[in-house]
Amino acid sequence: MSTNLRGLTIWLTGLSSAGKTTIAAAVCEGLRERGCKAEWLDGDVVRQHLCRGLGFTKADRDENIRRIGFVAELLTRNGIVTVVSAISPYRAARDEVRRRIGHFLEVYVNAPIEVCEVRDLKGIYRRARAGEISHVTGIDDPYEPPFAPDVECRTDRETPAESAASVLRVVDRIGART
Amino acid sequence: MSTNLRGLTIWLTGLSSAGKTTIAAAVCEGLRERGCKAEWLDGDVVRQHLCRGLGFTKADRDENIRRIGFVAELLTRNGIVTVVSAISPYRAARDEVRRRIGHFLEVYVNAPIEVCEVRDLKGIYRRARAGEISHVTGIDDPYEPPFAPDVECRTDRETPAESAASVLRVVDRIGART
Repeated sequence: MSTNLRGLTIWLTGLSSAGKTTIAAAVCEGLRERGCKAEWLDGDVVRQHLCRGLGFTKADRDENIRRIGFVAELLTRNGIVTVVSAISPYRAARDEVRRRIGHFLEVYVNAPIEVCEVRDLKGIYRRARAGEISHVTGIDDPYEPPFAPDVECRTDRETPAESAASVLRVVDRIGART
Repeated sequence: MSTNLRGLTIWLTGLSSAGKTTIAAAVCEGLRERGCKAEWLDGDVVRQHLCRGLGFTKADRDENIRRIGFVAELLTRNGIVTVVSAISPYRAARDEVRRRIGHFLEVYVNAPIEVCEVRDLKGIYRRARAGEISHVTGIDDPYEPPFAPDVECRTDRETPAESAASVLRVVDRIGART
């Protein structure tokens, strides 16, 4: 299980519609341009494959993050650069996967809730305001921002390309290149 | 997400106490000696990490196999040789992951139920006979043997080293070496 490549997990956390998916896609493209082997674990996709039956309580959200972390760890220790995009609202759950994985960048994809609510790409804020759904992060469920993220992307003030570039600058600096 | 390495999934199926874990360990050792990057996904371990809450009904067993298959696919397409040891009693579920993953060897770890019951490494046959547990594969739950496995290990007639060697011979032939 040893490897001569250097794997890395790049973990994007933030509210729904903050821009995680867009930045993740751009980061993956940049990694491939650098000749890195990259995998992208998107929270919504992983929920379908690994977490069917889990809901949005704190316990279920933590279990969801733990499962993504388990897979990210397997990939990372085999030299794959693994990009995760998942709301991952709880600090303790993020810190736990960070400890497990070791070679890890936390990226805080940050836009004010008011901006996310205007974007509302999946319509969940509208449905939350209409009382149709509950447990929506930022509305009636907490989001705990990172205390000291490795990168912070202010997506209300910068373009997705700028955000991705600032992530890739840190990747280049710490040398994940395979 | 492209890779110049050739990943492979080696999937060991068979009854409890048939010898899957022992053979998987020996196969992983042989892969490392060949300079392969190898990961081992053991059914019991994966159950703890990805499948907490799943039981032993057909639907839950199929979901369990689908999740292992999802992770094996991620690893395999990144050039990792992934060894899976899991009872995986249902043919259709195994065939589904085989189709998804593509580069796949099915290894039937075969010992008669009577032999497995004498070994009974985890005590599950004794507990099943005592009526303490149900849904035990080979006792009150079905096991559907592969129709045409790539390798069959008759663990009642050969040593674990012999079984592992026959798996590794096929690996060498199809060229999973990285």
